[in-house]
Amino acid sequence: MTVHTGLLRLETEGEGHIVDLTEGVLAVVLQSGVTDGVVTVFVTGSTAAVTTMEFEPGGVQDLRDALERLVPVARPGGGDYEHNVRNGDDNAHAHLRASLVGPSESVPVVRGRLVLGTWQQVVLIDFDVRPRAREVHVQVVS
Amino acid sequence: MTVHTGLLRLETEGEGHIVDLTEGVLAVVLQSGVTDGVVTVFVTGSTAAVTTMEFEPGGVQDLRDALERLVPVARPGGGDYEHNVRNGDDNAHAHLRASLVGPSESVPVVRGRLVLGTWQQVVLIDFDVRPRAREVHVQVVS
Amino acid sequence: MTVHTGLLRLETEGEGHIVDLTEGVLAVVLQSGVTDGVVTVFVTGSTAAVTTMEFEPGGVQDLRDALERLVPVARPGGGDYEHNVRNGDDNAHAHLRASLVGPSESVPVVRGRLVLGTWQQVVLIDFDVRPRAREVHVQVVS
Repeated sequence: MTVHTGLLRLETEGEGHIVDLTEGVLAVVLQSGVTDGVVTVFVTGSTAAVTTMEFEPGGVQDLRDALERLVPVARPGGGDYEHNVRNGDDNAHAHLRASLVGPSESVPVVRGRLVLGTWQQVVLIDFDVRPRAREVHVQVVS
Repeated sequence: MTVHTGLLRLETEGEGHIVDLTEGVLAVVLQSGVTDGVVTVFVTGSTAAVTTMEFEPGGVQDLRDALERLVPVARPGGGDYEHNVRNGDDNAHAHLRASLVGPSESVPVVRGRLVLGTWQQVVLIDFDVRPRAREVHVQVVS
Repeated sequence: MTVHTGLLRLETEGEGHIVDLTEGVLAVVLQSGVTDGVVTVFVTGSTAAVTTMEFEPGGVQDLRDALERLVPVARPGGGDYEHNVRNGDDNAHAHLRASLVGPSESVPVVRGRLVLGTWQQVVLIDFDVRPRAREVHVQVVS
């Protein structure tokens, strides 16, 4: 068995910025030489998430809008979120969105390629309220 | 270390059709001969998702209803989703639901069995707007 | 390749009780002696979920509130959930929340530590309507 570790470092704009990680994940897999295994993609931090989507401008806008609607910046019903009140913070909505979408996805590697669809990319969503430097760990087990 | 690859091919009805994958996943695990490891279940495509649930008619109906309510077919507030407008498409809601639920789950295998609960099944949800042929990759690492 | 199995047994209060699993997960990783690999954390049962968050009282309250708002105890629009009607049950909302958040997360282990952020913990959320004894499987592959 082998474990290969890759680290993607990237700068985001925050505020729901969605970044296509697919090329970076594939580069780690290729560098590992693994042909069959599983790659786990995990973002460090509690205000960002990892999922898959068709990465095109319309879908990107829709996903940002949907999360803003489902978990608004301002607490529905009035008042502020408890995280903000207790900690003098302003990014409670970012924490909530991140927990709902989740920080990791695992993708099988079969015969040297990720089993993603043609219109399916692995993406990072940075929900924080300001630009952030992010670390995404890409772990290949085989 | 060993990696075993299984591929489940299935036909869905789309429109939120939920399919119980548990038997298929277990068949791959049994065929692999693995007694202790992790099985990753991943659906290829950006309009379907994998999660777990108690697979019974009431829960199936409730989950379909909840996702329709949270991410409606018609864009809340009027107008159409950007994905549809820009691409002449009609399944933007399916993309959004798929990204929120996510394409993969990983389940430990302990002493030859999945550590699912008695009333917990691994399911595929196909959110697309028409019947689809789907591929679900089942990767066992041990 | 090696697989190490850990089992966390815990008592929850149900009703959205959120429990920090990080120390327990780390204990399994340390006991395994693994320095580089992936740890999969999976909750058995269809009314609980695993995700990550900043585990502090404000965020805990916000996440419970958000899930209550998104998937209320009472079916939006009136009537009861189908799961409850068909099975004489009262925890349909717990099932829905669990399926949306999902039962598993996988976290890379790099040089003996989990790649979590300083303010990012692995948590269990028990959505059921009563106190429960829960089993969380912690599987380390390396």
